[in-house]
Amino acid sequence: MTKPYRIDNLQYANWSEKIFRQMRMGGVDAVHVTIAYHENFRETVLNMEQWNRWFEQFPKLIFQGFTGDDVRLARKTGRTAIFFGYQNPSPIEDDIGLVEIHHRLGARFMQLSYNNQSLLATGCYEAEDPGITRMGREVIAEMNRVGLVVDMSHSADRSTIEAMELSSRPIAITHANPHNWHPALRNKSDDILKALAQSGGMMGFSVYPHHLQGKSDCTLESFCQMIADTADLMGIDHIGIGTDLCQDQPDSIVEWMRTGRWTKQIDYGEGSASDAGFPPMPSWFNDNRDFDNIEHGLRAVGLTDEDVGKVMGENWLRFYDENFGAAS
Amino acid sequence: MTKPYRIDNLQYANWSEKIFRQMRMGGVDAVHVTIAYHENFRETVLNMEQWNRWFEQFPKLIFQGFTGDDVRLARKTGRTAIFFGYQNPSPIEDDIGLVEIHHRLGARFMQLSYNNQSLLATGCYEAEDPGITRMGREVIAEMNRVGLVVDMSHSADRSTIEAMELSSRPIAITHANPHNWHPALRNKSDDILKALAQSGGMMGFSVYPHHLQGKSDCTLESFCQMIADTADLMGIDHIGIGTDLCQDQPDSIVEWMRTGRWTKQIDYGEGSASDAGFPPMPSWFNDNRDFDNIEHGLRAVGLTDEDVGKVMGENWLRFYDENFGAAS
Repeated sequence: MTKPYRIDNLQYANWSEKIFRQMRMGGVDAVHVTIAYHENFRETVLNMEQWNRWFEQFPKLIFQGFTGDDVRLARKTGRTAIFFGYQNPSPIEDDIGLVEIHHRLGARFMQLSYNNQSLLATGCYEAEDPGITRMGREVIAEMNRVGLVVDMSHSADRSTIEAMELSSRPIAITHANPHNWHPALRNKSDDILKALAQSGGMMGFSVYPHHLQGKSDCTLESFCQMIADTADLMGIDHIGIGTDLCQDQPDSIVEWMRTGRWTKQIDYGEGSASDAGFPPMPSWFNDNRDFDNIEHGLRAVGLTDEDVGKVMGENWLRFYDENFGAAS
Repeated sequence: MTKPYRIDNLQYANWSEKIFRQMRMGGVDAVHVTIAYHENFRETVLNMEQWNRWFEQFPKLIFQGFTGDDVRLARKTGRTAIFFGYQNPSPIEDDIGLVEIHHRLGARFMQLSYNNQSLLATGCYEAEDPGITRMGREVIAEMNRVGLVVDMSHSADRSTIEAMELSSRPIAITHANPHNWHPALRNKSDDILKALAQSGGMMGFSVYPHHLQGKSDCTLESFCQMIADTADLMGIDHIGIGTDLCQDQPDSIVEWMRTGRWTKQIDYGEGSASDAGFPPMPSWFNDNRDFDNIEHGLRAVGLTDEDVGKVMGENWLRFYDENFGAAS
């Protein structure tokens, strides 16, 4: 049997040659990388320019991915395909025409909101969630048309459900965990997870400690049992990995993620005054070389080889194949 | 014999469904369209957004071209492939990283200067031409790397010769005529034309009246004889069409082309106070339906069927095939 594809559908590391080499050591065929949190259009393009320099400097390690076939090309050529995504719709500013421009430039996932209210949808930290906005409806249709996947990882519940209903193509929650396992505000209810699966969507499991039962002390067994339980809830075909790995980032970055330019105050997000920075990672997942641990952990809780392959990347690959191109 | 491909390598019309239909009636397989004169990055992207709307509205008439194979696809599907280009490097502002971004978005030709001094090169209306600048050398190398063709149509002579020398790939003069036929400042000397051919470059013949012998009264025979003579000078493989068709544009546009935002004064460019607007087109070329006239005119001055095919599009197609992709 061919070794299944291995895809991490969310990372936001302080990228370096070291990390790109670790991707290769970890046998990671594709990574969806966040290239915008609060960046506007021009700032997002500057981040792409930085990636273009890395693609030019490290052509034997990484290249930009646009389609599912680029994951296969990555495997064939011993490299990692890098797919761009945004955690906020700030890169399209107030211009729906930028959706297609970003897709042409390689964006493949875009969150409709990040913690706060956006022009499109409500974030999970707002007190009220009025649902998808007028512009949000238009932008979802445009994202569906060109093949830019709606991501609701940081969105509030009503907005998330409405996004699934309004979207003519499956959506994703690229990085979160079930609320029933660890009741973080960012984690998702069973209702949302079931609706996501029913609409053909994908859930990526996060290793970010604030999303884990026991946080940094979460055991591999607990994490993998949670995945097995979610497979029972959602079906084995709708789940994958989205580690939210923020490797080598200084704490100033978690502050940028949380506050961008929308406040002059400190906002601790999922942290607290006494725990403001990036939390320590669980012992069994520190970087891209640790995916074998998850794979072994999934076998240990009873998943078959085929099911392990689906979770580790085959499901995301099918989702890429079906959702990154123009609507037919 | 298959009908040769028909390519117009420069138009800047006031685009409309009418004009797209005329492209089809004229059997034009591909058009290189100017989408920026003095626009900065964001403004150029707005122009792309407008084109994306046209591609969406008129999918049976036009689509965006990226490679030579898209010209073949256009022929096969009865449509016209639209290739983007800039008459000025203003879309990259002062950021070399934008070269690759623009190429990804579909830009395939960029002039290094438009009449005036730019950050990269000197324009044909400057009193002094100090040649390619420091940034110009870097940008030429980057354009060579990604496959964005250097266009020197509106550049001064020394800059043009240096661009050919510095560029590792052939360059183009997309729209101009020989100075020996009509001594307009914009038309090119025999020395430049010969150097262009020797370096593998392409010359596109313009029908813009200020570039024509006798201006609006230029005869088809004179135009076609000039092409035949230039074939003798440059070789039949280095020439094509670049009409500079500015169909349906109001005179405010020729003012924008000439003055952009670089002056508060009127600049008449190739016109004059008494002849400030767009000049009337010659009787034998008013729109995309008139390419048959040129084809017949070329036969009438003695070109073989094969040579006519080369001039009408086959040469540009070969040039597209060789120069629109990343350097190998």
